Amino acid sequence: MTTAFPEQGPLRVVAQQARTAARTLRSLSTERKIAVLHALARELRARESQILEANAQDVAAAQAAGLGAAMVDRLRLTPAALHGIAADVEAVAGLSDPVGESTPEKLLPSGIRVSTRRVPLGVLGVIYESRPNVTVDVAALALMSGNAVILRGGKETVRSNTALEEAIQAALRAEGLPQEAVQVIRDPARERMLELLKLDDLVDAIIPRGGAALHRFCVENATVPVIVGGIGVVHLYLDGSFTQDPNDVRRAAEVVLNAKVQKPSACNALDTLLVDRAALTVLPQIAQSLAAQGVELRADPEALTCLSGAGLQAHPAQESDYGQEFLALTMSLKVVAGLDEALNFIAAHGNHTDVILTRDAAQAERFVQDVDSAAVMVNASPRFNDGGQLGLGAEVAISTQKLHARGPMGLRELTTTKWVVMGDGHTRA
Amino acid sequence: MTTAFPEQGPLRVVAQQARTAARTLRSLSTERKIAVLHALARELRARESQILEANAQDVAAAQAAGLGAAMVDRLRLTPAALHGIAADVEAVAGLSDPVGESTPEKLLPSGIRVSTRRVPLGVLGVIYESRPNVTVDVAALALMSGNAVILRGGKETVRSNTALEEAIQAALRAEGLPQEAVQVIRDPARERMLELLKLDDLVDAIIPRGGAALHRFCVENATVPVIVGGIGVVHLYLDGSFTQDPNDVRRAAEVVLNAKVQKPSACNALDTLLVDRAALTVLPQIAQSLAAQGVELRADPEALTCLSGAGLQAHPAQESDYGQEFLALTMSLKVVAGLDEALNFIAAHGNHTDVILTRDAAQAERFVQDVDSAAVMVNASPRFNDGGQLGLGAEVAISTQKLHARGPMGLRELTTTKWVVMGDGHTRA
Repeated sequence: MTTAFPEQGPLRVVAQQARTAARTLRSLSTERKIAVLHALARELRARESQILEANAQDVAAAQAAGLGAAMVDRLRLTPAALHGIAADVEAVAGLSDPVGESTPEKLLPSGIRVSTRRVPLGVLGVIYESRPNVTVDVAALALMSGNAVILRGGKETVRSNTALEEAIQAALRAEGLPQEAVQVIRDPARERMLELLKLDDLVDAIIPRGGAALHRFCVENATVPVIVGGIGVVHLYLDGSFTQDPNDVRRAAEVVLNAKVQKPSACNALDTLLVDRAALTVLPQIAQSLAAQGVELRADPEALTCLSGAGLQAHPAQESDYGQEFLALTMSLKVVAGLDEALNFIAAHGNHTDVILTRDAAQAERFVQDVDSAAVMVNASPRFNDGGQLGLGAEVAISTQKLHARGPMGLRELTTTKWVVMGDGHTRA
Repeated sequence: MTTAFPEQGPLRVVAQQARTAARTLRSLSTERKIAVLHALARELRARESQILEANAQDVAAAQAAGLGAAMVDRLRLTPAALHGIAADVEAVAGLSDPVGESTPEKLLPSGIRVSTRRVPLGVLGVIYESRPNVTVDVAALALMSGNAVILRGGKETVRSNTALEEAIQAALRAEGLPQEAVQVIRDPARERMLELLKLDDLVDAIIPRGGAALHRFCVENATVPVIVGGIGVVHLYLDGSFTQDPNDVRRAAEVVLNAKVQKPSACNALDTLLVDRAALTVLPQIAQSLAAQGVELRADPEALTCLSGAGLQAHPAQESDYGQEFLALTMSLKVVAGLDEALNFIAAHGNHTDVILTRDAAQAERFVQDVDSAAVMVNASPRFNDGGQLGLGAEVAISTQKLHARGPMGLRELTTTKWVVMGDGHTRA
């Protein structure tokens, strides 16, 4: 069951080593964490030829195995990409370190003084698919937040990830730190992933990064707590008040276009446009700009009539086109009778990012209050739901669950707290 | 599989109703939440005879079924206990409401304004054992934090819990709120619990309250995120510096005694005393006060020699006596060579509450920094690791995991946040 991959011990041993390393990491000063990230950036640059050579082998193997061009593209590293990764590591070193922050000490009636102190989570397990830059990004965020991490990338990138692991471990050794702080699972067998998911006595959190099937696999099999995310339906509700002024109409069209086409494969791209009946007159203008970018519209009968009246093409929407994440240049469209119907629709289908375009402050506040999603936006593109865009500096994942972290997860979301109690021989009465 | 208990629909329907109710609850003002808790306290008092009658039937059935006296005691309600429960509900109504708190709005370089707003988790599933007071406590904390809750108590308390649910739902109706905000699973079949654990599209968190087996069952079967807790080993390290002054020695004996005997069945009671070799001379005095209270000591050879030299009884410790939660008047004892050995021992066995008794501030800070447990204490009894004692006012459970909440969970730990983004037609570049 736990037969080792030739170069690595059983996963339980890997995790025990990570746990031991985590004890060193959790007490590191910010300065030492910055130093190790700078050492890592240097190692990445110094090992450029080795890393690119390993990556070229992965690419060749993927092509030989007949992987699609998009998949091969995602795993390919170029010199520029590698230098970009090194620069990202240095950027993480510039983020503020949440570890060690304390709440103000409170003197309680019993006489004890109580505070909480922010500490690393401990050992993270991160499971992802083919992009090798994730290996370095996640290692940098884990180290900067004082965590050890076990990385499980896609089987197509084992050579690249091994070369990147060597760079990361060399940086750790150079700074006098245990190299087991960052370990890559090299055995691509699914059983090893299952093993990782069940090491709840050693691993503090599992963070999957990938498609819905990967998240589901983790949720259904893990005994380690899982932070799911990155998956969800994005709605935009266009309120009648945002169409009274030609400038607003132009802005509405720009926001909808940005929401859908700036990066259609992203989880924060628009899926469903809800149009207030009072805004129906401007729908053709919006639809035209979408059609010009090749977006396929799937519309309800009322929107369909409106669009065909304006000589625009659209497909009739099926029920399954609502509450669906498209991740492509396709979106659904529905006319609603106003804010209440929009809110009911979003309550049934939303959880990720939802937007209202409105000039009415009371409508905006009702929307923000009622919509229960990771991010709620007024007059802005849902594409802003991203760690960089929301000011976190970097993100390890976007959580769409409610426990622990919601929305983009930066350094702080890789930490927890502990209670600190100071007494002078105090006993409980 | 989902055959309904006569009086209740399938669990998925129960959860859907909870979800609908949660949408109303999440926007309730603090004033309305206070009002419903006061209504609940009134209902409990008004229904005293019905509730006690239902409880008497549970007690009689438990006795007829041959349940142990301790178990029967735990499920019994008295008029005084019921009035105490009503007073506790009113106390929860006096706690400060974390829902609606906002972080300061930040203007980001892109021009969007960003904040986070604190919101309820949504729908909680709480699974517990025989004490019916938990039904009301948890309902009050859930309602005050704006959450709907599905309660699954022990099968011995179904009649009591049904009577309490009627009181809670009457209070909800009286305040014009959906009674499905609080629902008790009346079918005691284990399959219903399994169903609840797997409703991850409807339930936001599972909080088990009970023994290790219940927590394990939830962790192994749930696809809903679980907050485990209440289980763990408690260590106290007595440093040589705390034995130089007779007052300190007296205090050390008092803290150890309080840690062990004030409530031996509690999860925050002492399990293992680690004695610095330099403090060995005072061990007999401490052991004597423990023995006087009937505490059984299981000691390593060095401590055993010391105790028998002082004419005191102890048993030789087995390896399994370390890292064990006793929940009884038994504890283990080990002599260590100083702080480093104590820290290594705690790193291997601790996660709940760990205490150092010391006069040396540097040793204290090293202990607080290095020990990675839910609560770390200096010169205080571990029995202070409790929601009431740490100033939370009330607790729904004590978490010993690291995600989301760690240590006692009060109202704030029943909430999450959402991102709020304000723009003026902003798009992502």
